[in-house]
Amino acid sequence: MAKLVLIRHGQSEWNLKNLFTGWVDVNLSEQGVEEAKEAGRKLKAEGLEFDQAYTSVLTRAIKTLHFALEESDQLWIPEQKSWRLNERHYGDLQGQNKAAAAEKWGDEQVHIWRRSYDVLPPAQPEDAEFSIAGERRYADLDPKTVPNAENLKITLERVLPFWQDEIAPKLREGKNVIIAAHGNSLRALTKYLENISDEDILNLEMATGEPVVYDLDTDLNVTNKKILEK
Amino acid sequence: MAKLVLIRHGQSEWNLKNLFTGWVDVNLSEQGVEEAKEAGRKLKAEGLEFDQAYTSVLTRAIKTLHFALEESDQLWIPEQKSWRLNERHYGDLQGQNKAAAAEKWGDEQVHIWRRSYDVLPPAQPEDAEFSIAGERRYADLDPKTVPNAENLKITLERVLPFWQDEIAPKLREGKNVIIAAHGNSLRALTKYLENISDEDILNLEMATGEPVVYDLDTDLNVTNKKILEK
Repeated sequence: MAKLVLIRHGQSEWNLKNLFTGWVDVNLSEQGVEEAKEAGRKLKAEGLEFDQAYTSVLTRAIKTLHFALEESDQLWIPEQKSWRLNERHYGDLQGQNKAAAAEKWGDEQVHIWRRSYDVLPPAQPEDAEFSIAGERRYADLDPKTVPNAENLKITLERVLPFWQDEIAPKLREGKNVIIAAHGNSLRALTKYLENISDEDILNLEMATGEPVVYDLDTDLNVTNKKILEK
Repeated sequence: MAKLVLIRHGQSEWNLKNLFTGWVDVNLSEQGVEEAKEAGRKLKAEGLEFDQAYTSVLTRAIKTLHFALEESDQLWIPEQKSWRLNERHYGDLQGQNKAAAAEKWGDEQVHIWRRSYDVLPPAQPEDAEFSIAGERRYADLDPKTVPNAENLKITLERVLPFWQDEIAPKLREGKNVIIAAHGNSLRALTKYLENISDEDILNLEMATGEPVVYDLDTDLNVTNKKILEK
């Protein structure tokens, strides 16, 4: 039996401005910092002790992890970061205001890009304002690996190898694991963990800063799920 | 050629109170937080970009690393923590006021414990107020590994395997490395790096929050040293 906790990062500066964020490395807002700390206090109140932490290579998730671990007196646990836990890459929508995008491409089209499982948004051009082309944090990757647009299906496909190779073996050993990541990388993982259909996953919302606590048996089946609500 | 940066954590709450700290996990003071952030701004101004970060399992060093990396826009780099980078274990002095210790054991004796290379301070009893016995963060270690008192010589002996196995190979690959740690674990490392004698090392002081930047050749000889002073 192992515990797995998923936590979506607290509110970011762009959540606040209603912009599509994706792989753009924006910071937490003040409210986001508070959400992360409060999540840490909840973890502590539940007596949750972790052996290993995972997060993305995006500042808002990393900081959420650090605040939550510090508040629960376990900033010292090992931490591993991976681009595979990054938010879904929103393609050419990244950096756009959600209302402006609806005006440009039409309400229905933007809704489909946001809410369909396997429809891709338009690719982000390499010279786009918020392109990650040339960013040092992705410089060691095969360039063909770095996305310029993702749907939830593709997000799950690139999250899964990290789950399989790094996270699942720890849980199988009985280690308690915390993952601080993003709305869509965590939705993808939740779909896999709870065996949710392509349709139903579209209705699943994860609140920012609310830890989701799973009990997993040795075959990594979910035996209990508890959300530490605000 | 690789860059190696050593940074001693900013002022802690116990530096401020003039208490022997060692392995006691005290937090940064407000000034300590500011020192860490300022160090990060200096790293950024120097254009220093790191491939790997190392720190101890003590909160004040971990937070110093995180603040310095965040201020230099590289919180996303891989980080590895080890007890081998912890502060020197001050034995039974831990938690004592420096003046009270001088009164109890005599000025000269306390001076010898603080400043000799190979004289051990009195061992900390297992039931001491600030004992680490039973602490989860050391639970996986061979109990014989966990010190109850250290001098600088012993500190160097337990830092060195981590240097040899983890840090040096990265530098040999040409990776740039930052280590955020403690006055004595960093003095020990400096002794080894600069080939300083047992006597001379006792006069070396490292200021809190002032990054020491080494250029190392491929054989890990120091070709340049620069301190980013406050």
